[in-house]
Amino acid sequence: MFKSQAKYIRSLAQQKNRKEHNAYIAEGEKLAREWLESSAAVKMIAGLDSWINAHKSLTDRHPHAEIITVSASELEGISTLKTPNEVLLVVEMPEKNTPLPENEWCIALDTVQDPGNLGTIIRIADWFGIRHVICSPGCADAFSPKVIQSAMGGHLRVQVHITDLPDFVLSTDMPVIAATLSGENVYQMPPFDAGVLLIGNESKGLAPGLVELATHTVMIPRRGGAESLNAAVSAGILCALLMPGL
Amino acid sequence: MFKSQAKYIRSLAQQKNRKEHNAYIAEGEKLAREWLESSAAVKMIAGLDSWINAHKSLTDRHPHAEIITVSASELEGISTLKTPNEVLLVVEMPEKNTPLPENEWCIALDTVQDPGNLGTIIRIADWFGIRHVICSPGCADAFSPKVIQSAMGGHLRVQVHITDLPDFVLSTDMPVIAATLSGENVYQMPPFDAGVLLIGNESKGLAPGLVELATHTVMIPRRGGAESLNAAVSAGILCALLMPGL
Repeated sequence: MFKSQAKYIRSLAQQKNRKEHNAYIAEGEKLAREWLESSAAVKMIAGLDSWINAHKSLTDRHPHAEIITVSASELEGISTLKTPNEVLLVVEMPEKNTPLPENEWCIALDTVQDPGNLGTIIRIADWFGIRHVICSPGCADAFSPKVIQSAMGGHLRVQVHITDLPDFVLSTDMPVIAATLSGENVYQMPPFDAGVLLIGNESKGLAPGLVELATHTVMIPRRGGAESLNAAVSAGILCALLMPGL
Repeated sequence: MFKSQAKYIRSLAQQKNRKEHNAYIAEGEKLAREWLESSAAVKMIAGLDSWINAHKSLTDRHPHAEIITVSASELEGISTLKTPNEVLLVVEMPEKNTPLPENEWCIALDTVQDPGNLGTIIRIADWFGIRHVICSPGCADAFSPKVIQSAMGGHLRVQVHITDLPDFVLSTDMPVIAATLSGENVYQMPPFDAGVLLIGNESKGLAPGLVELATHTVMIPRRGGAESLNAAVSAGILCALLMPGL
């Protein structure tokens, strides 16, 4: 691979460069397969010789992608993983400014800053068939390598919006359900056909101003000694209890 | 602080040294407060001068603990955190070989290898008042700094056992409920007053032999495209749905 290619790919580990180049990285055998089977706009496929040779039918689906054969040490040089895994893709960012959801479930995040939590929440949305995750501008960048890894392909099916949460909450007609430590007992709430689940920052929770704008508050009853639950775990439990059961 | 103290504390970042010295690290303002308010056997308190001076009533509760005043750079040298935070404790490991649970909820983990997941599951147990987490020998070490951090004090209230899971499952009289992708729909199961929730490895799930020993299998119905849920998120959702509601 050319030095300029390696430099470009390495630069995408940083948010400002992802923004400038409108591209992000999806890495490893498992994710590469998901991305190549999707209609995502793959720009580069950097893989070991063995991987490239074994996956011609997958790479053929992306005739506009540049295919770069790399050695194991070259892959290590461009990888964001501790243990690089056969192949790395550079993918064009999805379209921005798409319409915000109406009449369907979505999850809105106020300053969720841990990339692992953000990715896990996108994965939860994906599992529950929720097509929109709405991030306040203070959230972690949803296209960082760590978020892409923890969402396990969720980015291909879940749209991530970045927008002012108070504006969104004020403009929607849906129930807005704020997760707080002192809300209504989730076991005593009926399921909602659609709604906005508001999840707050890992240590500070939701901004009080945002809670005031919500139509409901909700809490998961505590039986033990923990002060709180992890943000992603709360989001998962609340989706399981507030969406209509199957 | 003495060089020998720094060397000893630094060594506890590694499992073999924690085992040899029967001690682990709990770090940062928030965790230190929880630990010092508990009856845990704190052996050393290494804190900034300002922290030590402001927390005399807390440190007085542990007359046998060695108090070490450290500079910010000394704290950085012994800390396992990216951003060291005022104080670090060395704590004696809790008693081992305590009795396994009977007639109460517990979570059993088969080769859960991500320290963040293990810690988050201990935090979930703590939230739901589950007093026992049982780890197969292949799980991440429950007393690594990363697990301690993500459990947020859960270690003070949740006992972690390491034991052969097939042996435990065969010996218990409780329902054993294996989380799998093809189990019974959790929404159609009645809550259990007591039981063993079996959670598997992040990529391979539960060992098939272990699933066969379970009295029940359970799954969270999928509505979207994700292949699976994160292990800790699954554990949280299953606790919320399988324990009697509040």
